[in-house]
Parts: sequence; C-alpha cells; structure tokens
Amino acid sequence: MNDRTCMQFIEELASSAPTPGGGGAAAFAGAIGVALGAMVGNLTTGKKKYVAVQPDIERMLDEAKALYQKLYSLIAQDAEDFKPLAAAYALPKTTPEERAHREAVMAEVLVNACNTPLEIMRCALTGLRLQEEMAEKGSVMAVSDAGAGAALLQGAINAASLNVFINAKSMKDREKAEELIKETEAMLEEGNRRAEKIFTDVKQRLLG
Amino acid sequence: MNDRTCMQFIEELASSAPTPGGGGAAAFAGAIGVALGAMVGNLTTGKKKYVAVQPDIERMLDEAKALYQKLYSLIAQDAEDFKPLAAAYALPKTTPEERAHREAVMAEVLVNACNTPLEIMRCALTGLRLQEEMAEKGSVMAVSDAGAGAALLQGAINAASLNVFINAKSMKDREKAEELIKETEAMLEEGNRRAEKIFTDVKQRLLG
Repeated sequence: MNDRTCMQFIEELASSAPTPGGGGAAAFAGAIGVALGAMVGNLTTGKKKYVAVQPDIERMLDEAKALYQKLYSLIAQDAEDFKPLAAAYALPKTTPEERAHREAVMAEVLVNACNTPLEIMRCALTGLRLQEEMAEKGSVMAVSDAGAGAALLQGAINAASLNVFINAKSMKDREKAEELIKETEAMLEEGNRRAEKIFTDVKQRLLG
Repeated sequence: MNDRTCMQFIEELASSAPTPGGGGAAAFAGAIGVALGAMVGNLTTGKKKYVAVQPDIERMLDEAKALYQKLYSLIAQDAEDFKPLAAAYALPKTTPEERAHREAVMAEVLVNACNTPLEIMRCALTGLRLQEEMAEKGSVMAVSDAGAGAALLQGAINAASLNVFINAKSMKDREKAEELIKETEAMLEEGNRRAEKIFTDVKQRLLG
C-alpha cells in the first residue's frame, strides 16, 4: 500500500472494490489535515519572531508527525477489518443452526468494524486540538493552512462517523449499538464545534 | 507529480515547501470525496435492483471520473500559481519606483492566485450535487460512502475558501477583493448547506 501513487489511491477508491471505502478516505483526509498543521510548524520553527513558542512548536511537530503516520496506517487497518465482515456476510443462512452461527459471528465482527472509524475520529480530534494551538502560536503567514487543516479534519470526523453508524445499524445487540452511537455522537459534536471555532477565528483574522 | 506516492504527498505537505499547501490539500480531499461518489456508482451499476436508474448512474460515473481527475489536476495548478506570487513578494521595495512596480505586479498575481481555490470550490460544489443524486439513486448498501464523500467535499470547500481570503487580505484594490470575498462566501454558504443536508439525510437513513 505504501508504494501506491495518489492517483492509484483515488482510482482504487472509485472502483467497486470494497476497500478503500469511506473509512480509508476519512483516514487519508485526516492525515492530510494534520500534515497541514505540521507545515505551519515547519514554517514557524527556528524563526526569530517565534522564539518564545519554539519548544511548543517542536513538541507539536513531533505530535503531528506521529499523528499523520497513525492516520495513514488506519487506511490499511480499515481494509484489514473489512475482511472478517465480508466473510461473515458470506456465511450460509439456510438452516437454523447456520443462522445462529452467522448471527453470533456477525455480532462480533460488526463491533470490531467500528474500532477503526472510532480511532480515526479520536485521532482527528487530537489533530483539531493541535491545529487550534498551531493557529494560535504558529506563523501568522500560514494561519490559513492551520484553518484549512481544521476544515479537512472536520470532514474526516464526519465521514468516519457514518462508518460507525452503518455498522451499528446492523447490530442485533441494540444496547451495544446505542453505546457506540452515543460515543460517536459525542465526538461528532466536539469535532464540529472545535473545527468551526478554528475556521471562524482564522477567517476573522484574514478578513478582519 | 503523478508518480508521487500517498505518503510522499503527505510529507511534502508537512514540509516547509510552500506547495503543496492548503489549496493542494483541499483539491486532493475534494478528489477523494468525488471518488467515493464514483464508488457508490460502481457498486450500483449493472445491478438488477437499480435498472430504472442505470442511465443516471452511467452519466454520474462519467461526471465523477472527469471531476476527480480535474480536482487532482488542480493540485499541480495551485502549485504553478504560487510561483509568480513568490516572485512578486521577492521584488525589491527600496525606491518609490520599485515600490510602485511591486505593487502593480502584486495586484495582478494576487487576483490570479485566487483562481485555483475558486475553481476547487466550484468543482467541489458540482461534486456535492453529484453526491446528493448518488445518495438518492445509488445502492442503499453504499449510502454511507455517499455521505462520507459529501463530508470530505465540505472540508475541501471550507479549506479552499481560506486561500481566497488570505490573498484577498493583501489586495490594495478593495473593490476587487470584496467581489472575490462575496463570491467565496456564497459558495461557502451553498457548500455547507448542501453537505449538511446530505450528511443529515444519510445519518437519518442509517440510524432510522
């Protein structure tokens, strides 16, 4: 996967192959958003004008690099998670025994299939907190990039949430489903609130 | 640029190199969003259940392919546009003549530098209209992908708008700046409204 060119990724996404899909796309957009934050840091580090925040910038650069690498690795993880889900959907369901077995397998793989989209959302939320600090402390010349990164992280969070919801929809265990939906809704709310605040602040600074 | 791997793109973005920056990142996220719409089409085309919408699906697949290719090409275009802007910023400004010359050059390149972000926003808006139709007519099994695509296109529109705003900020010609800001605000409003409607509808269909 690591040798894949950008256009190959887009074409694999567009194809009818089940992965990469919405989860992988969200993870990639999140990595792009975090990388924009790293760019702000790299345009700030070592500059005389920003010497007072130099330790913060260095810390944020390290955090951003680990975070975009993690988000990038979640593209492969999301594809990996899909395999047992596809296998479970393909299980026979003719006899009552087959149906019971299929249902038990499904219950497990559906919960597992939520792990990666939830992790993408958590990483994107961490990315938004970084972006907020980068917009505040980083070079003013790159403030639009911090805002753009926040906008892409918001897209990633919203996109990933739908992958939790579609798996939760099929769960027989409604208690577990509701628990996952609740966790997702909370991250959606926080993500959209944080991203909109960063975007509005940056826009305000640009338009005055 | 076309041989660049995904991780190389992310690392170039994260570096202090001026491009790719917020514009290129927005274009890429937009291409990813449109590709998700194409995926929905490719999971729908030829299916008996969707025979009634087959001509629409085929048309949308053609439109989506042209659109993600266009958005992808705007990454290179945005980098190209940056060159005269960087050259203008580097012009001498010691004598009144130099300052007058620099100002005249700046006026032109700043307006030009808005063209690609505006085009990214227009393409992303077209992508949202496609995504809306895909969510409505495409396979219900892939509806979360149509919604995820819309979320990423929303991120792309918001991210690109900040590149118009940062260039408009530096324009001496306030009338031209206000005209560009107004056009951008209108697309921002339409983009966020359309994307939120698609997202809410898809979420509602998944959660019931």
